[in-house]
Amino acid sequence: MHFTSEASSNGVLERTFTLGDITGVLWSPDSVNSGGPLLLSGHSGGMHKKAPGLVAGALHHVTAHGFTVAAIDAPGHGDRPRSTQDEQAVDAIRHARASGESIAPLVVEYNLSVAQRAVPEWQATLDALQALPEIGTTARVGYGGMNLGVVTGILLAPVESRIAALSLGGVFVDDALLAAAGKVTVPVHYRIPWDDDHLDRNAGIALFDAFGATDKTLHAHSGSLHQVPDHERDCAARFFVEHLR
Amino acid sequence: MHFTSEASSNGVLERTFTLGDITGVLWSPDSVNSGGPLLLSGHSGGMHKKAPGLVAGALHHVTAHGFTVAAIDAPGHGDRPRSTQDEQAVDAIRHARASGESIAPLVVEYNLSVAQRAVPEWQATLDALQALPEIGTTARVGYGGMNLGVVTGILLAPVESRIAALSLGGVFVDDALLAAAGKVTVPVHYRIPWDDDHLDRNAGIALFDAFGATDKTLHAHSGSLHQVPDHERDCAARFFVEHLR
Repeated sequence: MHFTSEASSNGVLERTFTLGDITGVLWSPDSVNSGGPLLLSGHSGGMHKKAPGLVAGALHHVTAHGFTVAAIDAPGHGDRPRSTQDEQAVDAIRHARASGESIAPLVVEYNLSVAQRAVPEWQATLDALQALPEIGTTARVGYGGMNLGVVTGILLAPVESRIAALSLGGVFVDDALLAAAGKVTVPVHYRIPWDDDHLDRNAGIALFDAFGATDKTLHAHSGSLHQVPDHERDCAARFFVEHLR
Repeated sequence: MHFTSEASSNGVLERTFTLGDITGVLWSPDSVNSGGPLLLSGHSGGMHKKAPGLVAGALHHVTAHGFTVAAIDAPGHGDRPRSTQDEQAVDAIRHARASGESIAPLVVEYNLSVAQRAVPEWQATLDALQALPEIGTTARVGYGGMNLGVVTGILLAPVESRIAALSLGGVFVDDALLAAAGKVTVPVHYRIPWDDDHLDRNAGIALFDAFGATDKTLHAHSGSLHQVPDHERDCAARFFVEHLR
């Protein structure tokens, strides 16, 4: 893991890094040895490691609760090259959107492909983060994600025992994702945008119901996926505080 | 309003009061002029103004966020006499429970009767509270309730413009309640116990959907009505903080 930039403002240290082909960013309290939990944050499809909602959530976790938060660009996203397969999938989604067709089946397929590639990258990133003296292996680890980041989290948690809790929300749901969710047994916090133009609320409820966890929490808010009320952002942080301390 | 007892512990002043036939309790920060919001708290059917869950929530609101919280015994509950009608309704519910029949239709009917009587009592209580110099009319007012307290809140909010936000959860739902919920236009926070033996989660979702408010939040948690996780209790408080400040 090589740090490629470092900046500090409002009590938060932001460091970008590379790890092989992976590009990422790490936010931590300015007082480096915080001892707080580590949160891995997975962005939406089409976005990147510094998506505005992701950054807002990360800064809140760091400043209000002393977390360290890491985000990486998913394969084909942000600062990373797109493969021919990525280009074709993105073109197909754009074309469907422009011609008024449902993008859901295409997004579901592409999300799964990207998430499968992202799982070993998150594991390698976690190895490298835990090798940093200021993080180490004692900090408990949570994972949060939206959309594509939800699919990644659902595939990651069952194969990565270091993930102790998940906070997810807003994703297209198909039978494969419902089946995968059944394998998630760590505590889950799931968020549904109640009035999103694209995401069906009943599919979100079915996904919440499918999680294999016995400790799970569903939060729905009026408005769309990106209209997250402040109190909901803090609820997610408090869910992690309760489960990672 | 006559105060009948006063005790202070852990920074919280607890005062019981009577107002005509109404018996109630008021919790406030020890430093009396807190200037914080006023929360009216409606207990479950069969419970009373000091139901354990209600008290836990009230103390959290006072100590963590500087609220003043008031609770009153519903008609026929707590320190108040039961009418013949109350006795008959309670006997019928007990009988149904003992013989393994569904209690839902009986509870729905009795809740509605009690809530209709409770609405003017809450309004009179609010008048008296606002006449106290340490509360006054500038503090914004919210209402929280479970079960019977949900029905009361849904009937109260549309006729009482001083109520600026509702936090409710866990109730038997019928068509009359769905229709009443459509008249609620203030922000609503609604909580569903996902695995309750008696409360149907889909009825809870239908009620959430029925609220006429444009700003609404649904929280569901694993477990039963009375197994509220700590982070959920705090979410309700933060919902009020966001809407009453």
